[in-house]
Amino acid sequence: MSEAGKRVRIAVDAMGGDYAPGEIVKGAVYAAQKGDVEIILAGPLSVLEGELAKYSSSNDLPIRCVEASEVVKENESPALAIRHKRNSSIVIATKLVKSGEADAVVSAGSTGATAASAIVYLGMIEGLERPAIAAPLKGLGPDTILVDIGGNVDCKPYQFLSFAIAGSIYAKKVFNIANPTVGLLSTGAEQGKGSEAVREAYSLLKNSGLNFIGNVEGSDIFSGRANVIVCDGFVGNVLIKFYESLGIYALDVIKRKVKKYPLAGSIAKLLFNRIFPVTKLAYAGEEEGGGILWGVDGVVRIAHGACRAPHIAHAIASARNTVKADIVGSLKSELAKFRAENKL
Amino acid sequence: MSEAGKRVRIAVDAMGGDYAPGEIVKGAVYAAQKGDVEIILAGPLSVLEGELAKYSSSNDLPIRCVEASEVVKENESPALAIRHKRNSSIVIATKLVKSGEADAVVSAGSTGATAASAIVYLGMIEGLERPAIAAPLKGLGPDTILVDIGGNVDCKPYQFLSFAIAGSIYAKKVFNIANPTVGLLSTGAEQGKGSEAVREAYSLLKNSGLNFIGNVEGSDIFSGRANVIVCDGFVGNVLIKFYESLGIYALDVIKRKVKKYPLAGSIAKLLFNRIFPVTKLAYAGEEEGGGILWGVDGVVRIAHGACRAPHIAHAIASARNTVKADIVGSLKSELAKFRAENKL
Repeated sequence: MSEAGKRVRIAVDAMGGDYAPGEIVKGAVYAAQKGDVEIILAGPLSVLEGELAKYSSSNDLPIRCVEASEVVKENESPALAIRHKRNSSIVIATKLVKSGEADAVVSAGSTGATAASAIVYLGMIEGLERPAIAAPLKGLGPDTILVDIGGNVDCKPYQFLSFAIAGSIYAKKVFNIANPTVGLLSTGAEQGKGSEAVREAYSLLKNSGLNFIGNVEGSDIFSGRANVIVCDGFVGNVLIKFYESLGIYALDVIKRKVKKYPLAGSIAKLLFNRIFPVTKLAYAGEEEGGGILWGVDGVVRIAHGACRAPHIAHAIASARNTVKADIVGSLKSELAKFRAENKL
Repeated sequence: MSEAGKRVRIAVDAMGGDYAPGEIVKGAVYAAQKGDVEIILAGPLSVLEGELAKYSSSNDLPIRCVEASEVVKENESPALAIRHKRNSSIVIATKLVKSGEADAVVSAGSTGATAASAIVYLGMIEGLERPAIAAPLKGLGPDTILVDIGGNVDCKPYQFLSFAIAGSIYAKKVFNIANPTVGLLSTGAEQGKGSEAVREAYSLLKNSGLNFIGNVEGSDIFSGRANVIVCDGFVGNVLIKFYESLGIYALDVIKRKVKKYPLAGSIAKLLFNRIFPVTKLAYAGEEEGGGILWGVDGVVRIAHGACRAPHIAHAIASARNTVKADIVGSLKSELAKFRAENKL
């Protein structure tokens, strides 16, 4: 962890993402230009130097490169790739955090590989089995954080509790909510509704000391009743992808209508874009996609595979804020406290 | 089953629903006025006669009443209520189907009680364990049917297959699609993604003889790639409630913006309502909520608890169409064929 006042050092997987390395390096340049982070790019040096040469200012920016000769591709088995490609950009970038040379790692590459690399090289926080991803929901309601939207499927009851703790810390630190409310996503408001794991998680949450308000339903997500909504990663993944896609389908509907009623349609589209965030919704996936990988012992920021330079800069800034707020440290201490109190 | 040309006979649980009996009886009158159904109302005779007396034409309509002195309330345990309240309106209405006096039953009462009553008095089709609910998705994409949105949680792989068969029959009979595509909702496109049950269901679906196109993600739901999307009832329930709620939250956002920019906001709202189905989306829950209870050996049409007369009339018409198209008969024969072919 960097000391206060020092620049936060971010290791960037320069070869991960649909538009790597071009857009990733460009995003790193944007972030470095703001002057409050130091960037370490991981990738083949010749490639990185060629990309950096495109920006006349890059020599004066706090950016350095480290050699990583291999790349993990989107369709590779994450576990195997991490084991065999020890010189891959994601592994090299992650190890910079482990060795203390960087404070956080950012990757737009395969989420599975980033998670596998983090598990292997940074390890999990005690009491957690697999990393989770928390998604801030934007557009239609007050600040709400949904955990897990990552790969935690067939969750055990205890995992829901760890999601609730992670989400509460996020809501405290990022939303500045003193005592965030926690809702358990289920098929009905009453205790006893939902899957077996959810029903068991209900009791754990009720006795957790968190500000648990009980079950919430799909229709409650944007109501603001719960600042933190916890769910199995399968449900969260489907929900977030569904929501992110709606803006695009809505725009398609508008485009078709515009053809049918050109004047009314055009005015509506213009005004609608001004006053209602449908297009923002459409691109929420690229702007806000990904998030912190919760549960690994270090700051790992996942960016959307399809993201471009501004979004990489955004992910780098988000990683910096996570380091500054010591969110991972808070999660570790709160979980340790909870485990001690509950003799786990 | 009624013969061709004869009126379809619909038993209506007159005491089920937030606005029962008033709106239910009114909806039954609307449906009967169209002349192609015969209605049998179940409820306390004195109450029903009082309601019917409000409509001068009701004496000439094909509506009759049967005594049912008890009511199952929303918060009662469905299984217990069905066992103990044998004279409840839902039990009496369901038994009219069993005895052959009615071709279908419609209820806006507790979904759990309606399902429990159907399971006990009509029984399940061979090979199915619990009823499923299929929801046609409206608004942003081509005709798509989602199964299950009902109470089937912790689904076994075989249940996904039964959802796929039910959904395919729905798409054939209602959407008139000759060979509907079936997608399995999961966290990634590749086989091997998702929960254990989904991964096992993948193999079953692949070898089912259905037009299975593999996994679909949350972002594919409105793409039209799959005419039928199958998922665990937990996921479907959360998704459909989330989607149904979006129109209401979107309208709230517009209302707030209208206050801020009155002229632009008002024009946008007006035009938007004209060209984009946001308000329809908002009320999709009431218009289209509920659906056929798939898997029970008879036609049972669930209506939304909050529905009013026009929606009850719609649910009655939908039940009539289900009887006419012999959808339950098709499901029985297709499932029997599948079980024979796969030696189940």
